[in-house]
Amino acid sequence: MSPLAGTPDPPYYAVIFTSIRTEIEDEQYAAAADRMLELAAQQPGYLGVEHARTPGSTGITVSYWTDEASIRNWQQNAEHLAAQKAGRDKWYQSFTLRIAKVERARTM
Amino acid sequence: MSPLAGTPDPPYYAVIFTSIRTEIEDEQYAAAADRMLELAAQQPGYLGVEHARTPGSTGITVSYWTDEASIRNWQQNAEHLAAQKAGRDKWYQSFTLRIAKVERARTM
Repeated sequence: MSPLAGTPDPPYYAVIFTSIRTEIEDEQYAAAADRMLELAAQQPGYLGVEHARTPGSTGITVSYWTDEASIRNWQQNAEHLAAQKAGRDKWYQSFTLRIAKVERARTM
Repeated sequence: MSPLAGTPDPPYYAVIFTSIRTEIEDEQYAAAADRMLELAAQQPGYLGVEHARTPGSTGITVSYWTDEASIRNWQQNAEHLAAQKAGRDKWYQSFTLRIAKVERARTM
């Protein structure tokens, strides 16, 4: 996976997920995060993902989708729902999830 | 600065800046990045910023703004223009800049 997502010309959608981790279950969290990236990439409407985490601080994952219906579909995926619950219960101290329509983009 | 931005209810705008650094001028880059965060926070329409960088890999900075005019204004700021040029010339191997309208958000 290239670190920068190769997305088509706008418009398309972005899911911006910003989080602060707890210190609970690092290995299980990393395995689940990898699995979610793998599973997301198999969903209809998936365009790509970008991820960064400052050690001990903020993590940002931005996934890109063709449309809102694809995002809703992915959010309702059974395995993803289980991971979301573990995230709320154990892995995240706090997070913000934003859904945004990408209107313009440029790359260097 | 809190690591998660406290933004108002949507709609508002997000600038998603994803980058891969070169290995050039770490200290100058860090100083300029800090200065840009400080300067952005003084601009009209600024709502907040979130930043993460995986060491040696992807960096993601998402800044939030009330409207597109505020984003254009910030992009044309003289000190910011100089930093953008240094970014293209020296500091970034590659980057993508996306402008997106945040339509929905939730926080835990």
